[in-house]
Amino acid sequence: MPDILYDLAVIGSGPAGQKAAVAAAKLGKRVAVVDRRDMIGGVCIHTGTIPSKTLREAILYLSGFRQRTFYGRDYTLQDRISVADLVSRVRTVLDRETEIVRSQLKRNGIETVHGTARFADPHTLVVETPGGQVPLAAERVLIACGTRPAHSASIPLDGRHIFDSDQLLTVDTLGKQMIVVGAGVIGLEYASMLTALGHTVTVIDQRPTMLDFLDQEMIEALSYHMRRQGATFRLGETVTGVERDARGRVLARLESGKTVQGDALLYTVGRQANTDGLALEAAGLQADSRGRIIVNGAGQTAVPHIYAAGDVIGFPSLASTSMEQGRLAACHMFGLPCVSRPELMPYGVYSVPELSMVGRTEGELTRARIPYEVGMAKYAELARGQIIGDDIGFLKILFHPLTRKVLGVHVIGEGASEIIHIGQAVLTLDGTIDYFRDTVFNYPTLAEAYKVAALNGFNKL
Amino acid sequence: MPDILYDLAVIGSGPAGQKAAVAAAKLGKRVAVVDRRDMIGGVCIHTGTIPSKTLREAILYLSGFRQRTFYGRDYTLQDRISVADLVSRVRTVLDRETEIVRSQLKRNGIETVHGTARFADPHTLVVETPGGQVPLAAERVLIACGTRPAHSASIPLDGRHIFDSDQLLTVDTLGKQMIVVGAGVIGLEYASMLTALGHTVTVIDQRPTMLDFLDQEMIEALSYHMRRQGATFRLGETVTGVERDARGRVLARLESGKTVQGDALLYTVGRQANTDGLALEAAGLQADSRGRIIVNGAGQTAVPHIYAAGDVIGFPSLASTSMEQGRLAACHMFGLPCVSRPELMPYGVYSVPELSMVGRTEGELTRARIPYEVGMAKYAELARGQIIGDDIGFLKILFHPLTRKVLGVHVIGEGASEIIHIGQAVLTLDGTIDYFRDTVFNYPTLAEAYKVAALNGFNKL
Repeated sequence: MPDILYDLAVIGSGPAGQKAAVAAAKLGKRVAVVDRRDMIGGVCIHTGTIPSKTLREAILYLSGFRQRTFYGRDYTLQDRISVADLVSRVRTVLDRETEIVRSQLKRNGIETVHGTARFADPHTLVVETPGGQVPLAAERVLIACGTRPAHSASIPLDGRHIFDSDQLLTVDTLGKQMIVVGAGVIGLEYASMLTALGHTVTVIDQRPTMLDFLDQEMIEALSYHMRRQGATFRLGETVTGVERDARGRVLARLESGKTVQGDALLYTVGRQANTDGLALEAAGLQADSRGRIIVNGAGQTAVPHIYAAGDVIGFPSLASTSMEQGRLAACHMFGLPCVSRPELMPYGVYSVPELSMVGRTEGELTRARIPYEVGMAKYAELARGQIIGDDIGFLKILFHPLTRKVLGVHVIGEGASEIIHIGQAVLTLDGTIDYFRDTVFNYPTLAEAYKVAALNGFNKL
Repeated sequence: MPDILYDLAVIGSGPAGQKAAVAAAKLGKRVAVVDRRDMIGGVCIHTGTIPSKTLREAILYLSGFRQRTFYGRDYTLQDRISVADLVSRVRTVLDRETEIVRSQLKRNGIETVHGTARFADPHTLVVETPGGQVPLAAERVLIACGTRPAHSASIPLDGRHIFDSDQLLTVDTLGKQMIVVGAGVIGLEYASMLTALGHTVTVIDQRPTMLDFLDQEMIEALSYHMRRQGATFRLGETVTGVERDARGRVLARLESGKTVQGDALLYTVGRQANTDGLALEAAGLQADSRGRIIVNGAGQTAVPHIYAAGDVIGFPSLASTSMEQGRLAACHMFGLPCVSRPELMPYGVYSVPELSMVGRTEGELTRARIPYEVGMAKYAELARGQIIGDDIGFLKILFHPLTRKVLGVHVIGEGASEIIHIGQAVLTLDGTIDYFRDTVFNYPTLAEAYKVAALNGFNKL
């Protein structure tokens, strides 16, 4: 066993690893982060959040999607949006973001070790670097190794016509008819982007419902608008096999006997954690069938000095929550008091239209027998909604009819993931809908939806 | 004197009049609103806020302004953006907004009288309608008649080459070199839009500084970016005369001896209140030289049952504050308790880049001898800033170094007028910057700037 030179060794430089490393470094700890040179920033930057959100922004712009209210439904900026246009934009952002992470680690005196790590014993990692094996011993270890798309024996990926979400970024052309298997966040984000681009998309999932953590009304609104844009949903259907026919068409065979045809298929069912190369057993740990590690509320694994955070611990697997998990783990391992209120974390889904929520859903409140009233505002009634041409968005505030306390906020439409934070602040600081009634909002903004919704809510009392 | 049929007569259907009328109607009062048929919604909808913000949105889109980070500085969507493109978009929004106001008044049982009003006595208005004179007697009156662009003897407007902000919307073509006289909110909003369109603009104002209600650093950032886009500022300079030369060029002569040349000139110095036709003397009221009426904190004029609200009472003359003034006046006149905290109202300036603020500025805090520290976040360091290509925006939080209470928030850049409301909620609900540190924000969003700024602030303590 080598000398312990580090207070903390972090496996993975994605949002969780990075924030944990920085938090520990700010406490004066000696920190090393292990990641492959080409993966600094994790899948968040390289194949996940950043590419998909950049693609989304580019697609919305280049497809003229936001402008169709004004210039007609068939308006597009470029008749044929080249994949090169999209990819070059993604590349710009990705390079810049990687640089930001790299410099943040450096600025905080964190050592970056380029390579892949595995456990030699509970306190020692062996890092395979381009220059050979390097041992790395640390008082504490954070596993933030992230995930990769899960694969299925019944779906033979070829990276060209049948591909996962990582491969999507390198596919040359997408056909007009797409099949998306998996109606999770990733599947729906891509499926809705594809419809915005004018593709028809069939979304298949074996679960009968989708995005169950969201409010039912919001999911229904999303389905409605995706259908209007050219999506078909096949929920509660299991894919038994995928093949290409003689003409090159992709066929997905469903257990129910249906066959879904398309030019290409995107497979987004689940993620597999990258724990398989970590030699967890050497640390006295084990993972579940998806490679996930179980942790307690502070992020501790069964081995108390080893923590795990980010996608490797499962739901919700959002960059925002992973950062928080990383920060919490670092605080806990070094004895810094740290408050976390998971019930006040927002969720953002970057589908088209965008969705965001904070607090509770109508379903949750009903199941908990908490009475609530709903204040509703439609973007179409807001001057800003008119100006940007979003006539489908809406915001609803769930509040207690007696105390008028805000219980939850749900938004679908442009800017949803931004303006949710206004409701989040009022919810967190224990405010009532009176706040929205009595507050002056800039005009014209989408934020005004809060005032309109509050007034609507008061009318129901 | 006719029978008093109304509890409230409102002169003007702009934001102030409209919100006062609705508030009174919701209290069960009989309300009449007087306005010209073609002016329902006031200048806000017809020549002010709505057209200028719609134009701004259209210009930013059609000029490709937001995309230049990705596609190069010279990128534009259309080489020659036609005025027709812009105007048609404005028309769509304007018609829709007028309809929304009309239906809101109707839904609340408010009678709309089409015509122009003047006082016959303190309780009676005479309305000149297309069908003749109609008397209108009311217990209380709200003057929300709005303003129009002020004119100057030294600036001979012709509506084609030398025009005010109302006329701008009907000008056929704008030359490449523009002169904007008046560096107030309206002048700067249009001047910065013109620079975004690729025009060079000279902004002239006799005051040595501009937008004094904003934080100095923000004004300097705005000036900097406007200069980079092609603006020249001539502040502290008085225009003594404007003429067109033989070649049709517009010449503005300055007291300092300089001559500024351009293809056209936009005059935006001040607004004149529309009180001149109201026969105020019949109500026992008078206006100042700009036609403005003085009111107390509740909106009451010198004649207690007559109130005034909106642009007619002067600064800040924003649609958002006018709505609030209207609502407050209605509450006060009918004895409903109503809280107003003007110090918590946000300001939004829809220049390019956009500016917004809430709370106090650095200058105000220094003058009041309140110590503060600054937490700063640059958009360029945010993933969302990268994705949308805004690398110049920033957000700063001013907070008390001992209590860590938020004292003010200032934002310049995309979405400024939306995300300011997050800071406003925390400020209003008496929060500290700890809130931003401890809160999970959606990723990637501009709202994350609050967290980055808070962490930056903590590092300075």
